[in-house]
Amino acid sequence: MRVAVVGLGLIGGSLALAASRAGAEVIGYDLDADAVGTALERGAVGAAAGSPGEAAREAELALVCGPVAALPGLVRSVLEAAPAGCVVSDVGSTKGAVVDAVGAEPRFVGGHPVCGSEARGMANARADLFEGATYFLTPVAQTDPACHRRVHGFVTSLGARPVAIDPAAHDRLVAITSHLPHAIANALVNQAGAGRIGGHDPLAAVGGSFRDMTRVAGANPRIWVDIFLDNRDALLEGLREHGRRLDELTGALEREDAGYLARWIAEAAGNRRRVLEAAYPATPEELFRVRVHVPDRPGVLSGITQALGAEGINIEDFELHHVSADQGGNVVVTVAGEDEARRAVELLEAQGYGAIAVPAVDA
Amino acid sequence: MRVAVVGLGLIGGSLALAASRAGAEVIGYDLDADAVGTALERGAVGAAAGSPGEAAREAELALVCGPVAALPGLVRSVLEAAPAGCVVSDVGSTKGAVVDAVGAEPRFVGGHPVCGSEARGMANARADLFEGATYFLTPVAQTDPACHRRVHGFVTSLGARPVAIDPAAHDRLVAITSHLPHAIANALVNQAGAGRIGGHDPLAAVGGSFRDMTRVAGANPRIWVDIFLDNRDALLEGLREHGRRLDELTGALEREDAGYLARWIAEAAGNRRRVLEAAYPATPEELFRVRVHVPDRPGVLSGITQALGAEGINIEDFELHHVSADQGGNVVVTVAGEDEARRAVELLEAQGYGAIAVPAVDA
Repeated sequence: MRVAVVGLGLIGGSLALAASRAGAEVIGYDLDADAVGTALERGAVGAAAGSPGEAAREAELALVCGPVAALPGLVRSVLEAAPAGCVVSDVGSTKGAVVDAVGAEPRFVGGHPVCGSEARGMANARADLFEGATYFLTPVAQTDPACHRRVHGFVTSLGARPVAIDPAAHDRLVAITSHLPHAIANALVNQAGAGRIGGHDPLAAVGGSFRDMTRVAGANPRIWVDIFLDNRDALLEGLREHGRRLDELTGALEREDAGYLARWIAEAAGNRRRVLEAAYPATPEELFRVRVHVPDRPGVLSGITQALGAEGINIEDFELHHVSADQGGNVVVTVAGEDEARRAVELLEAQGYGAIAVPAVDA
Repeated sequence: MRVAVVGLGLIGGSLALAASRAGAEVIGYDLDADAVGTALERGAVGAAAGSPGEAAREAELALVCGPVAALPGLVRSVLEAAPAGCVVSDVGSTKGAVVDAVGAEPRFVGGHPVCGSEARGMANARADLFEGATYFLTPVAQTDPACHRRVHGFVTSLGARPVAIDPAAHDRLVAITSHLPHAIANALVNQAGAGRIGGHDPLAAVGGSFRDMTRVAGANPRIWVDIFLDNRDALLEGLREHGRRLDELTGALEREDAGYLARWIAEAAGNRRRVLEAAYPATPEELFRVRVHVPDRPGVLSGITQALGAEGINIEDFELHHVSADQGGNVVVTVAGEDEARRAVELLEAQGYGAIAVPAVDA
């Protein structure tokens, strides 16, 4: 298969690498000559094109991997240059604007791989970036089913899980699972960082849960300003609904309604259970979190992971909550099965650690 | 020193264990006979009392460790029974109500250890629970400085970091660093879990950042309903301020104000930097996140942690973002120093993994 990749950043570069390794003939384009050079060096592309259109001219699959704001224009120019049998897709994290701009075009299938975007650039591209990730595809009524099938097959070959969804529904879905939480992480850290309280900097006394909740705060403005603006309508609707939910909470607090609060927390527990169900093969009731306090020195973590590995206890999740160089940190190991959890605690205690196991969800 | 511990749950039990190990004579009280039995068995207490007052009668330090809603009454009855020289403290995660209830009492010093509360009960108590934790103390104008000093010394002996703060300021501070984020985690998961979008369950397609942001959602309603109600005023103020901040964001989105969004994200990046500064000995610019894709099988994590440990590379933080049993997961190792990060990547690549290192904060 001949594949064109327009835009050789982290995502485009990783798609190019994966396609090349699978035996495709890949031609790439990027404005940045360094990215093109790295793509050639790393074998991600076999040849470089002088323009998006030139890249697409003989392609069977053209992947447009530019920034969200540039996608409508780029996709249109690639479609103009691409031959009749070529399928064109993109990787933008919003889909409404690009699908609207393309119009009734049977060869276009919008795409959005849901994978970490912490690293950037061709230098950090990896062929296995998409393994296990949800990969949204947004075919519409006008889309040629054969084109959808070709992209679907390519996505599957990446190890990703293709999920077909209407473009507008996609944007509403990612607004509440990604863009709204991201915006709220910024808001929370800015509220806590707005000033001292009683002489104390709130940010200096936060616990691990605040750090987890604000990990994505302050992420790359060059990417996120465009995403927020591009998905403005769905994000605004998400913000209004968030506001309505917090108004309800405010009312319950004002009238000291313990029953409302208990029901609201129980609803959250049920929803968190569904998140865990989707993320782990074990049922949430089988998951146990084993907590161990450890000193901060090299080799401690390997002692723990080795002891568990040697006994065949599979680690579903592993977190180190760092406390300090003097005081060490807390390791939380998630394992499936009460028996496994009990054995893990015994093994760790035999190594001289204090360990406890608690269910991942309340009974 | 003679120490009384009233309430032998996770926190009270852990305080009792730590005090006993440090050589104190500890007498304990709990309504639940099983908790008392476990405390005696584990050597957390040397003797059991029949009432809170009896526990406090000969104490030099009395620690009241009941649920938030019961604290004002319990602390008053302990103060009545405690001798003239006895210092009384509590461990409630809100401080206004209990300090108000106690009134002008020189022997009382409010306390709040900021440590994980995932596990529960005397059976899970650990003497090292407080190591490295912030431990708020709320002496007021009427407090006897000698009493404050005694609690301060005890807290330091636990390995915790005592931080003196005004009770009302304490409650405002934890409202925005703990109670508001906790409430928002519930709201986010309930909003995303409210129904299907375009036929898809949003909770089934969330990424790691959504899971991180909602990890505390649905936590024990018996504890959290009381905390939300007890710290109602500060939480309501936090919710109002959160609403004002999101209204500003809404306005910026409506007028498509890219400049506002860029400044707002930059402010969040600066605040996140301060969170990292407080949490790690290294400066945020020195921290690098090394990301590795790994298969899901026993022994893989130990291979990684061992390789890094053997080379003397200290792991500041370690996360496993589990993807699936088929596809494995992503390990993120945080190390201090660009050189360490480069060596870590080389070591992991030598083991056959694809690894990349990215700065923990944007330059």
